[in-house]
Amino acid sequence: MKTTTSDALREALQTKIDNLNKPKGALGRLEELALQIGMIQGTCTPVLHHPCHLLLGADHGIEHEGVSVSPREVTWQQMINFTRGGGGVNLFCRQHGFRLYIVDVGVDHDLSAYPDILYRKVRKQGTRNFLHEPALTFSEVKSALAVGRELVETCHAEGCNLISLGEMGIGNTSPSALWMSLLLDIPLERCVGAGAGLGSDGVNHKLRVLQQCLKRVIDRAAGGTLSPTDIMQELGGLEMVVAVGAMLRAAELGMVILVDGFIMSAAMLMASRLRPETMLNAVFCHVGDERGHRLMLDAMHVSPLLSLGMRLGEGTGALCAYPLVESAVRMINEMNDFQHAGITKYF
Amino acid sequence: MKTTTSDALREALQTKIDNLNKPKGALGRLEELALQIGMIQGTCTPVLHHPCHLLLGADHGIEHEGVSVSPREVTWQQMINFTRGGGGVNLFCRQHGFRLYIVDVGVDHDLSAYPDILYRKVRKQGTRNFLHEPALTFSEVKSALAVGRELVETCHAEGCNLISLGEMGIGNTSPSALWMSLLLDIPLERCVGAGAGLGSDGVNHKLRVLQQCLKRVIDRAAGGTLSPTDIMQELGGLEMVVAVGAMLRAAELGMVILVDGFIMSAAMLMASRLRPETMLNAVFCHVGDERGHRLMLDAMHVSPLLSLGMRLGEGTGALCAYPLVESAVRMINEMNDFQHAGITKYF
Repeated sequence: MKTTTSDALREALQTKIDNLNKPKGALGRLEELALQIGMIQGTCTPVLHHPCHLLLGADHGIEHEGVSVSPREVTWQQMINFTRGGGGVNLFCRQHGFRLYIVDVGVDHDLSAYPDILYRKVRKQGTRNFLHEPALTFSEVKSALAVGRELVETCHAEGCNLISLGEMGIGNTSPSALWMSLLLDIPLERCVGAGAGLGSDGVNHKLRVLQQCLKRVIDRAAGGTLSPTDIMQELGGLEMVVAVGAMLRAAELGMVILVDGFIMSAAMLMASRLRPETMLNAVFCHVGDERGHRLMLDAMHVSPLLSLGMRLGEGTGALCAYPLVESAVRMINEMNDFQHAGITKYF
Repeated sequence: MKTTTSDALREALQTKIDNLNKPKGALGRLEELALQIGMIQGTCTPVLHHPCHLLLGADHGIEHEGVSVSPREVTWQQMINFTRGGGGVNLFCRQHGFRLYIVDVGVDHDLSAYPDILYRKVRKQGTRNFLHEPALTFSEVKSALAVGRELVETCHAEGCNLISLGEMGIGNTSPSALWMSLLLDIPLERCVGAGAGLGSDGVNHKLRVLQQCLKRVIDRAAGGTLSPTDIMQELGGLEMVVAVGAMLRAAELGMVILVDGFIMSAAMLMASRLRPETMLNAVFCHVGDERGHRLMLDAMHVSPLLSLGMRLGEGTGALCAYPLVESAVRMINEMNDFQHAGITKYF
């Protein structure tokens, strides 16, 4: 459906937006969003169809080192809770009309009694403890990326052109902080934060554990460079690698990708290292409370839509920003221009 | 419906919010909003009914001094455009299910041919030019406040318990900047900005004009204090004074008040000087691009929900923040607690 070259389309979109009956630029970020979505869809009249949310759940071996305030069993308990509709992700999906897919990609519990949870376990217990050994095998990384691709293809086949991603995985700010440190070359202490609510002693312990992990990984590389795939293999987590695969495929399919908080931003960072143009499809939805998140977004040269002190995960920040994306699309389609509005053009 | 004392209700609300199945505080500003709305409605199960948006249009005598980038006729042209559904305010009202009232409270044009525009003109030509004389008489201020009260009562009688306010009035950042300077004792140069898009020469001219206006008003006070009513009378504008009346009445009726950008924030500031508890009902929805807006909100000790570089007015910033208010209400009502979710409480 790309009927025009990219530069010509950008110019056509900007002209259309500038001629809507408002002072130029007066709708701020909504105008930038409308331009971005028009570019993604290759049209001056973008539409949003059948939004879907992938809630990816998995466990982390590193959780055994006491790096999280929450116990491991909360992962599976929350997965079950999501099937009952009472979680944060559920209510925001209902509010904004998202189809919710709850997917077990490596939760350390048998969830087969819950038909509403898709069974896509890449490894039953979740990742290995990366303090001592690589979190995943190369083959498991490949499988996880494939699961992400497949999930997005399912949504796309239903008519979805906007995908949102969220995670449930106790301990997952730990691999995210390490991904951030390694991919952006930022000292680990600036990447490690409180997660779901560690106190300062807890954060210090987490940092010490993760510094040992980082040393192990760097020692193993023995002076060589760690590729994105090496980093995913060394550190996991499964829900994060699945998200990377999902983001890569969503961009290939011309879908808008809503990026949630610290963990999903790390996944988009990883995806962008595998295929930089994936970033063109990314809408960064919120900056959370996790210490490194603002720094990560700054280093990626992106600015989030919301800053509301949220740190729940599950994709709740992405979902809460969705109405702004819809507003942008409505603006470019429904707002009339100066000529049709019968209004003296301001300047 | 207030079945409990204020302190007991606050504690009950906080306990309920803290026991929802998420780490304490993990939904950030949404948790604060839920608490506020519960307090406004006097219940732990708040609901939002029949949201209404008042779009108040009026003209300003000061516009004749070249303080705005937009010509005066844009006020009436936009009012007509709003009846056709093509304005920013229209599309966001449609998106979020707001009933829109388009109200002429002093537009310098005959709009009687448009039945969708409510005729509530307080003064046909809008305000007088406050460079030379008071913008309004005492009687006109009283009438404008009464119009605001009446409009809110109409909405309330329909079952509305959340009101949003927006304005259309070329030149209205000028009286807003003066209200801000006088009410907060902030030097005028920090309150005056580009409005809909003045360049730096335009802003300098606007500042010089408004400094003369400020001098005239202060000279007239002859060393005495200017009361809130004096300020409204000296400077107008009509849509702003109507908004003040609307906000005062909405708070009395226990309604949630969505506060838009620079001009409507100035109106809430004025309302709070007449009755401080009005602020308890105010949700500050966005901080706009206008130079003084962030400073005004800081001085009022409030933090807006959105910061998206918007400066359209019409209440568009308030409307765009509405889904977050709805999210907060859904959270407190629909999210289950740790006990019912079957989840180990995190801490």
